[in-house]
Amino acid sequence: MNTFGQIFRVSVFGESHGPAIGVVIDGCPAGIPLKPEDFTADLSRRQSGSRGTTKRKEPDLPEFLSGIWRGRTTGAPVTVITRNSDRISSDYDDFIKIPRPGHADMTAAKKYSGFADMRGSGHFSGRITWGVVAAGVIARKIADKAVINARIVSVGGLEDIEKAVDEAVTTGDSIGGIIECRVKDLPAGLGEPFFNSFESVVSHLVFAIPAIKGIEFGAGFAAASMRGSEHNDPIINEQGTTLTNNAGGINGGITNGNEVVFRVAVKPTSSTGAEQRSINLETGKIEPFTISGRHDTCIALRMPVIVEAVTAIAIADLLLIDRGINSLR
Amino acid sequence: MNTFGQIFRVSVFGESHGPAIGVVIDGCPAGIPLKPEDFTADLSRRQSGSRGTTKRKEPDLPEFLSGIWRGRTTGAPVTVITRNSDRISSDYDDFIKIPRPGHADMTAAKKYSGFADMRGSGHFSGRITWGVVAAGVIARKIADKAVINARIVSVGGLEDIEKAVDEAVTTGDSIGGIIECRVKDLPAGLGEPFFNSFESVVSHLVFAIPAIKGIEFGAGFAAASMRGSEHNDPIINEQGTTLTNNAGGINGGITNGNEVVFRVAVKPTSSTGAEQRSINLETGKIEPFTISGRHDTCIALRMPVIVEAVTAIAIADLLLIDRGINSLR
Amino acid sequence: MNTFGQIFRVSVFGESHGPAIGVVIDGCPAGIPLKPEDFTADLSRRQSGSRGTTKRKEPDLPEFLSGIWRGRTTGAPVTVITRNSDRISSDYDDFIKIPRPGHADMTAAKKYSGFADMRGSGHFSGRITWGVVAAGVIARKIADKAVINARIVSVGGLEDIEKAVDEAVTTGDSIGGIIECRVKDLPAGLGEPFFNSFESVVSHLVFAIPAIKGIEFGAGFAAASMRGSEHNDPIINEQGTTLTNNAGGINGGITNGNEVVFRVAVKPTSSTGAEQRSINLETGKIEPFTISGRHDTCIALRMPVIVEAVTAIAIADLLLIDRGINSLR
Amino acid sequence: MNTFGQIFRVSVFGESHGPAIGVVIDGCPAGIPLKPEDFTADLSRRQSGSRGTTKRKEPDLPEFLSGIWRGRTTGAPVTVITRNSDRISSDYDDFIKIPRPGHADMTAAKKYSGFADMRGSGHFSGRITWGVVAAGVIARKIADKAVINARIVSVGGLEDIEKAVDEAVTTGDSIGGIIECRVKDLPAGLGEPFFNSFESVVSHLVFAIPAIKGIEFGAGFAAASMRGSEHNDPIINEQGTTLTNNAGGINGGITNGNEVVFRVAVKPTSSTGAEQRSINLETGKIEPFTISGRHDTCIALRMPVIVEAVTAIAIADLLLIDRGINSLR
Repeated sequence: MNTFGQIFRVSVFGESHGPAIGVVIDGCPAGIPLKPEDFTADLSRRQSGSRGTTKRKEPDLPEFLSGIWRGRTTGAPVTVITRNSDRISSDYDDFIKIPRPGHADMTAAKKYSGFADMRGSGHFSGRITWGVVAAGVIARKIADKAVINARIVSVGGLEDIEKAVDEAVTTGDSIGGIIECRVKDLPAGLGEPFFNSFESVVSHLVFAIPAIKGIEFGAGFAAASMRGSEHNDPIINEQGTTLTNNAGGINGGITNGNEVVFRVAVKPTSSTGAEQRSINLETGKIEPFTISGRHDTCIALRMPVIVEAVTAIAIADLLLIDRGINSLR
Repeated sequence: MNTFGQIFRVSVFGESHGPAIGVVIDGCPAGIPLKPEDFTADLSRRQSGSRGTTKRKEPDLPEFLSGIWRGRTTGAPVTVITRNSDRISSDYDDFIKIPRPGHADMTAAKKYSGFADMRGSGHFSGRITWGVVAAGVIARKIADKAVINARIVSVGGLEDIEKAVDEAVTTGDSIGGIIECRVKDLPAGLGEPFFNSFESVVSHLVFAIPAIKGIEFGAGFAAASMRGSEHNDPIINEQGTTLTNNAGGINGGITNGNEVVFRVAVKPTSSTGAEQRSINLETGKIEPFTISGRHDTCIALRMPVIVEAVTAIAIADLLLIDRGINSLR
Repeated sequence: MNTFGQIFRVSVFGESHGPAIGVVIDGCPAGIPLKPEDFTADLSRRQSGSRGTTKRKEPDLPEFLSGIWRGRTTGAPVTVITRNSDRISSDYDDFIKIPRPGHADMTAAKKYSGFADMRGSGHFSGRITWGVVAAGVIARKIADKAVINARIVSVGGLEDIEKAVDEAVTTGDSIGGIIECRVKDLPAGLGEPFFNSFESVVSHLVFAIPAIKGIEFGAGFAAASMRGSEHNDPIINEQGTTLTNNAGGINGGITNGNEVVFRVAVKPTSSTGAEQRSINLETGKIEPFTISGRHDTCIALRMPVIVEAVTAIAIADLLLIDRGINSLR
Repeated sequence: MNTFGQIFRVSVFGESHGPAIGVVIDGCPAGIPLKPEDFTADLSRRQSGSRGTTKRKEPDLPEFLSGIWRGRTTGAPVTVITRNSDRISSDYDDFIKIPRPGHADMTAAKKYSGFADMRGSGHFSGRITWGVVAAGVIARKIADKAVINARIVSVGGLEDIEKAVDEAVTTGDSIGGIIECRVKDLPAGLGEPFFNSFESVVSHLVFAIPAIKGIEFGAGFAAASMRGSEHNDPIINEQGTTLTNNAGGINGGITNGNEVVFRVAVKPTSSTGAEQRSINLETGKIEPFTISGRHDTCIALRMPVIVEAVTAIAIADLLLIDRGINSLR
């Protein structure tokens, strides 16, 4: 399922080494101003280049295929793509033979009976998140009052992020990280229980992002060790402002008007310079091997903007649904 | 949105103090043997009664309204309900006036413009999970080779669960807990990336359960502190068996044939015997108040079966989708 | 798929001779006044009793299971059921052996591998439309400005309907009919092209009703014989009023503010008193047989209210979607 | 809603005079052989050129953006586009001022608050059906045993099609037509009642095609004048073969293994050389005007392949759903 959303529907497509990657956004309100430069900031944040991230550099400029006219959305599906210009498939030829631990090589091969395009991890590449970030740019304009900010809080277990990256680069190994996302000025009332609680929708989108292995809202896992009298957030006015925010801005699956806070855990990049072992499907033997291509030491560093994008997508959809159901009142 | 699933679709309905709660399961294969007694074990596990759980006791026997004939599913929607016999609404009358911290009282009131049925938390009550557990009983029969087990690993931060509950009961406060779910003998290939990764579908369902505030797969949050060479699970045979299981049985959003492992964090029951403070919407003043009704000291104790149920629902749907798409090969 | 709708979602369940039939309406705005008597008029119109319809009489009173409190919808799923009290299954026992022409006996048996409940046609019975009519009652309240009227325009090819029914009753045979539905005061702008044109959504729902075999909008099939200069409806004011209405109130799949007009063709009741021939699956021989149970001479007579109900459902959903997407402007 | 399908999901995008039109097919089984030449025959049939169709000629060659590798589908979304090279927007500039009767000019302007791209009818152009035909090519490969054939049975009310077109070309007016579609060798069991009857799914898709205003299955509207004993199709063997086929191959919304037959009514092309009248939104006066651009005398002539495509899409989706639900037996 490469489409998500009930009204504001985002569909991603593309492979790492295919002709292009892109996104179609359906159910997008008409009249939203949109020009290629609107994408620059977010796409650049997602881009490689800084220490700890891969050297692969692509312009990644968005090309509009549909849904935009005279600088505004038209109500028809918005399609945005970018061409894949910088492809070195030979890096990956071996990995059909020796499936890389931590990657989708083996699961994709099984699921798709050997037909999956695995060049550069194909449709499983983190590169697919380009379309997600592009959709996020549009979603933010719908959820325009909400201020969404995600940031790295630690990598490799350290809050001194520069130091942690340096160490990892030195050892040639990769490291994970934790990202915290905060949303201010989000209206109360978003979320559609029972199944589409605000947490459900956000976590659904978050776990679509490759490498994410955990999410917690508000006090999260720490809540499991708390007492109710300590965890409950006293409500201090008629707007529903709370004294503490252990709930992370959500009660009963619905935003309560306070800041939404959640954290996600990013595993270390599966591609690492360190020697690994895996089965050679041709010989049937376990063999040592090394991944020689470029790769991120800490993929988490590139992900705050992706976490923001999926949060914006969740908010945009829930906002339009809530307005739809409640529009007649 | 009270329906979840692409093929195997589960729809819940009902309120804590309404006439009945129930579930409709659509897209259920025909011919599955199903009788009321099949529900007994799981519904009993969900039931109140043990130390640390509420005293409310209802028979909760399932009544079939549709979709069953001669002891088997017919291919038509299966509807299962149970009547609400043990209702004491007066317990809750005050909480429209003074919204309880941690509950949906205020968010539901706002979202539904004061029309939400909040007797016993209404549609936001944990009681709605009765329908989820009932659906899980059917889902298990579809995913019949998978062995799904969830258990409490800690409550109130302690692994000695009995001790933790005793302490909490003594103080009159409530406590949270952590539940771990393991799925053995699950076929490889389940999960529909990009958006419907196995983690996405499970987490979507898990966060529909009231009181859950976090989820992590495999090494989860600990992965953020690990190195790639340490986190990657070496593949040791052609079946994809891995030496370690930091991935929690999932690569690229698709099950890899190893055990699926995830943990969820349950917050302390919001209803606690301890005195709390909240806004009185009539007077506009912050007031102390105490919740006098019966309630669970540790709601987590009743939740392993619910976590198993949503896991079974996720597996059943992903299994039917995978079979559908791949059926022609 | 027993659920229809994107925001306003209607799920039907039940079998002709099962314990109950019913409907769950999800995505229903909160605050809509709703009491059992609101259903009386429409359910009575659907009811049997008049000449040309079956003698089966059930009270069919609606029982609310969820989603209603203090006489209003709460925002939670609304569940309405009615018990099946007047069941004579023995009438139908033979038809698993000899599948009745025109019925779903054989297709359902094949599709569901013999597990389908075929007592009284089971889930394929026209009785399932009870839930559709009940949902229509609620949908009308959402689409409250629209005035939806369906009426029989001919039965058995005759506009003198009484005469046609009399003739058919005399011969013991069944007859079909044509129903025309008109919707006044429908706002312009409903319909979500490309795929969810107004015609697409209405026809989807209409063809769910058993026995309907054709639909045409505006000039319909006659349009195929017209010239463009004759068929085009001149627009005569800024509101979009047209001089003629060959388009049936829809342009480009979107309502244009003029009256919506469509007609549906209803086949003769498949159950007829006349002797028929079909394969006996036990003997493998073609055998003559007669259906002795009660049945409608002209099922079309009971269907205008069902056509109105699905039209209301289509309008309610398209209205909420349109409002949702356009709510921010 | 520009996406259709439950498992095999087709999403169209693009505008007549935008950069490109295209389609994304998600839920497409892996391993289907697919090369650009596979599209030639169907896209050519849809193409303009023959007498009675517009002179606009575009190569319309398909460009694969994703989902194909080594000549086969990979299981990831398949994206196929074609660039719009032959655009003359000036033809249409006036029609925002004077909305053309029969077109979406006014409804789209209202619905999208004036932001709709109406160059060449924008997203409402028949050109969008290019993506539908492309998706149909893939759908046919999934439904590979079914033989789908649609043909013109009459235009402008005449079965002598050449004569009817000649007359219309002479008068400068446009004409409608009727298309009949027949599907042989379709397996029994397709269709998912209650709501997704085979007729519901086909008609939903058919009414997405611009200019279609009616559909009937089997005897269709004629059934309304028949008697039950005449309309019922006697079943003559255990395979369900029927002596007649008034049901059009469908009973209870499920295919019965006989030939599926349906007819659609196509209105005359709304753009006609004849002088028309409409409101001038700038002056507020009704004015005569003439459409000078190229256009089809009889758009129905280009539509059999589109009707085949949507039929193939319906079959592919229903086939995968049926296999999915029934795969475990």
